[in-house]
Amino acid sequence: MNALLTDLYQLTMAAGYFEAGKIGERATFELFVRRLPARRNFLVAAGLQQAVEYLLDFRFEAGEIDYLRGLTQFRRARPEFFDYLAGLRFTGDVFAVPEGTVVFAGEPLLTVRAPIVEAQIPETFLLSTIAFQTLIATKAARIAETAAGRAVVEFGTRRAHSPHAGLLAGRAAYIGGCAGTSNTLAGQKFGIPVFGTAAHSWVQAFRAEIDAFRQLQSLLGDNTAYLIDTYDTAEGARNAVKLGRPMWGVRLDSGNILELARQVRRILDEAGHPDARIMATSDLNEYKILEYMAAKAPIDAFGVGTDLATSADAPSLGAVYKLVEMESNGERRYTAKFSKDKQTLPGSKQIFRYEDHDLVGCNWECPTCPPGARPAEVLQRPVIIGGQLVDRLPTAFEARERALASLAKLPVALRSLFAAERPWPVEYSPELLALRDKVAAFQPAEARG
Amino acid sequence: MNALLTDLYQLTMAAGYFEAGKIGERATFELFVRRLPARRNFLVAAGLQQAVEYLLDFRFEAGEIDYLRGLTQFRRARPEFFDYLAGLRFTGDVFAVPEGTVVFAGEPLLTVRAPIVEAQIPETFLLSTIAFQTLIATKAARIAETAAGRAVVEFGTRRAHSPHAGLLAGRAAYIGGCAGTSNTLAGQKFGIPVFGTAAHSWVQAFRAEIDAFRQLQSLLGDNTAYLIDTYDTAEGARNAVKLGRPMWGVRLDSGNILELARQVRRILDEAGHPDARIMATSDLNEYKILEYMAAKAPIDAFGVGTDLATSADAPSLGAVYKLVEMESNGERRYTAKFSKDKQTLPGSKQIFRYEDHDLVGCNWECPTCPPGARPAEVLQRPVIIGGQLVDRLPTAFEARERALASLAKLPVALRSLFAAERPWPVEYSPELLALRDKVAAFQPAEARG
Repeated sequence: MNALLTDLYQLTMAAGYFEAGKIGERATFELFVRRLPARRNFLVAAGLQQAVEYLLDFRFEAGEIDYLRGLTQFRRARPEFFDYLAGLRFTGDVFAVPEGTVVFAGEPLLTVRAPIVEAQIPETFLLSTIAFQTLIATKAARIAETAAGRAVVEFGTRRAHSPHAGLLAGRAAYIGGCAGTSNTLAGQKFGIPVFGTAAHSWVQAFRAEIDAFRQLQSLLGDNTAYLIDTYDTAEGARNAVKLGRPMWGVRLDSGNILELARQVRRILDEAGHPDARIMATSDLNEYKILEYMAAKAPIDAFGVGTDLATSADAPSLGAVYKLVEMESNGERRYTAKFSKDKQTLPGSKQIFRYEDHDLVGCNWECPTCPPGARPAEVLQRPVIIGGQLVDRLPTAFEARERALASLAKLPVALRSLFAAERPWPVEYSPELLALRDKVAAFQPAEARG
Repeated sequence: MNALLTDLYQLTMAAGYFEAGKIGERATFELFVRRLPARRNFLVAAGLQQAVEYLLDFRFEAGEIDYLRGLTQFRRARPEFFDYLAGLRFTGDVFAVPEGTVVFAGEPLLTVRAPIVEAQIPETFLLSTIAFQTLIATKAARIAETAAGRAVVEFGTRRAHSPHAGLLAGRAAYIGGCAGTSNTLAGQKFGIPVFGTAAHSWVQAFRAEIDAFRQLQSLLGDNTAYLIDTYDTAEGARNAVKLGRPMWGVRLDSGNILELARQVRRILDEAGHPDARIMATSDLNEYKILEYMAAKAPIDAFGVGTDLATSADAPSLGAVYKLVEMESNGERRYTAKFSKDKQTLPGSKQIFRYEDHDLVGCNWECPTCPPGARPAEVLQRPVIIGGQLVDRLPTAFEARERALASLAKLPVALRSLFAAERPWPVEYSPELLALRDKVAAFQPAEARG
């Protein structure tokens, strides 16, 4: 299932590899981000769980193969190719950095090594699911960092790029540091805390605001967050304190949030509710939250929707999936792309994280092996070997714990909302650079055929 | 299925309506866009098909209800509420503008009238699926308009916000005017033309570029588009002409597209291939295409990925879903929201499209009825009545035809890539404005309880 959820060219290439007798060749692809988006100094890796589920479930259904058979692009493909597709499963290996790991541009988040067709067809799905969740986990980390301990809840499904994107945004935002999500399915599916009380329509559905509040309180008790801006925010706050405890607090969703938060805080305090909390939720993002934090706004929690679920100020990640090795009949060939501005480095790689920099080397290097060598964390780990999951994957909660720990180790300058003067150093090993030069010297001649 | 794919507050409100004895009350919600995104003068409505499928399939599964039962927010809900959820189906009415219709800010794309819980829970899903596809169809219309008859193909699944978003982006882009998509599942599921030939990895997987080209040609014949920039674009073009016909043409994916297109055109022409086409695909959008068109670049087709599938310059749509009427025991009450900067208009509405403006009126008005009245197109149509689909929905192809016709009627100034000085006039009927004033005068007093 989902095998057709890919670019057509993956499938025409599959047919081509079949016809060329190359399906036995093993290819190694690496997934990485070329450049960090604007204002980002790091990424929080996410989406591996869905990538792995896809690979383990990978197969074509009969109807999908029939569809391909009818396409003009496959009219010259032999019947044996479609039989081959019907039996195709993912039998290869996957190495990846665990979800929640902080990563940087040029570092392979995921490496796939498999017979070439099994590695090629998944490209589109893998890029899409990993890049999107990494984008959102990164945005969430920025927002949570700015909120400095105040809870941030992801509220963006309605503005996400499809309901399914909202589900994954809820997951990724949690991994990046949110306290939870409003997406109920994300709660059920991923064990993420879910939040939500009532909307304006709830208030409007009753003849009087206070009736709506009373009914909510009787249902939610100390989870009650009164939404107080349907008609007039100060009046709404007064209606909330009339009912008093139990309540969690109130929510502001329009107007000048800073002024209103102060006014509402006074109303709550004067009525004897210093423990009633204020949540703000009006088109927020890390920049607005920064302003509120700097102004010491009496806001206890933030609900962030559109800007988080779409990573609005940087709505895509330049993630790519590039062929780095080919293996056939026991012979290994290293490959790279030398297109202008789009060069890649050949060969399977590993990421070594030191206290103050990362080193990307060839995957056979072991810079930590020599006696007395500086210790380093090895980021890529085996995930699938021979089509089988090596070990259970971390839960969303565990990935979130890893992200929190991983972010805490970053220098303060890199946790800024703005581009750091000095990015995290990502160095390439001399051996990797030598391999690149060797491939570069050799390849253009070949290209001319 | 998918009933949990919603914000938690929809479900706490459902429990609240149940406890308040309000589940028999009928609510009417309208889905509309508050403001057009930057530089947009119109929207192309899309996503209704998926919205309708969701409503017709709407139901809670046992596991979903068990999950809710365990949440702290539902600990006071009575067991009868969960039984009620188990039996819940969408039994209401839906009115909507057909997919492909050009619409503007403030116009209801979709109206849902149903027992309040059935209308409330779907809010999140409906907003997400309709806003996203409308966003992408609109972006596609801008790009196709700029390409002025040259084919535009949607190539963005790998950068979409999840693979599923890519599937829907392919559909919406086609409705907005693209010739097709690379998303194969979109082809199968929605009957959309699919395109694609080979990637850089295809070229790299062979020892020589020309071997890769030859193998592709033998598979694809006159569908062959040689990707010529893996090593050196001019050399790639020369390898392509060495093989000659059959071929569709070549694809450029890096470097200075304008210069390379001219250089490659010369190589193709001089080798006797004036009919070989050039496709460009390097991080394109409507602005870059505008530049190429103005420069009379010899480009025959554009493949657009990231910027189209994410609507990168405006990655979200301010779509909202607002309660406009409540009906209980035969009594109808009109509702509106008067929050600062977020006011809404009460009552069910209809959109009347005249040659030179739109009129939004109450849904009982008939401005075209009086003898001699100016004719107008009535945009909202019944889609679901009493939980049943009224008629088959238009296919993606039919929606695309509607969009093309709908866009062709727009004044040239509004088809610009930039904000028009004079937007399309959307007027409100005197009756609608009078209703708003009546509700406004009445409601604040209520709000104070």
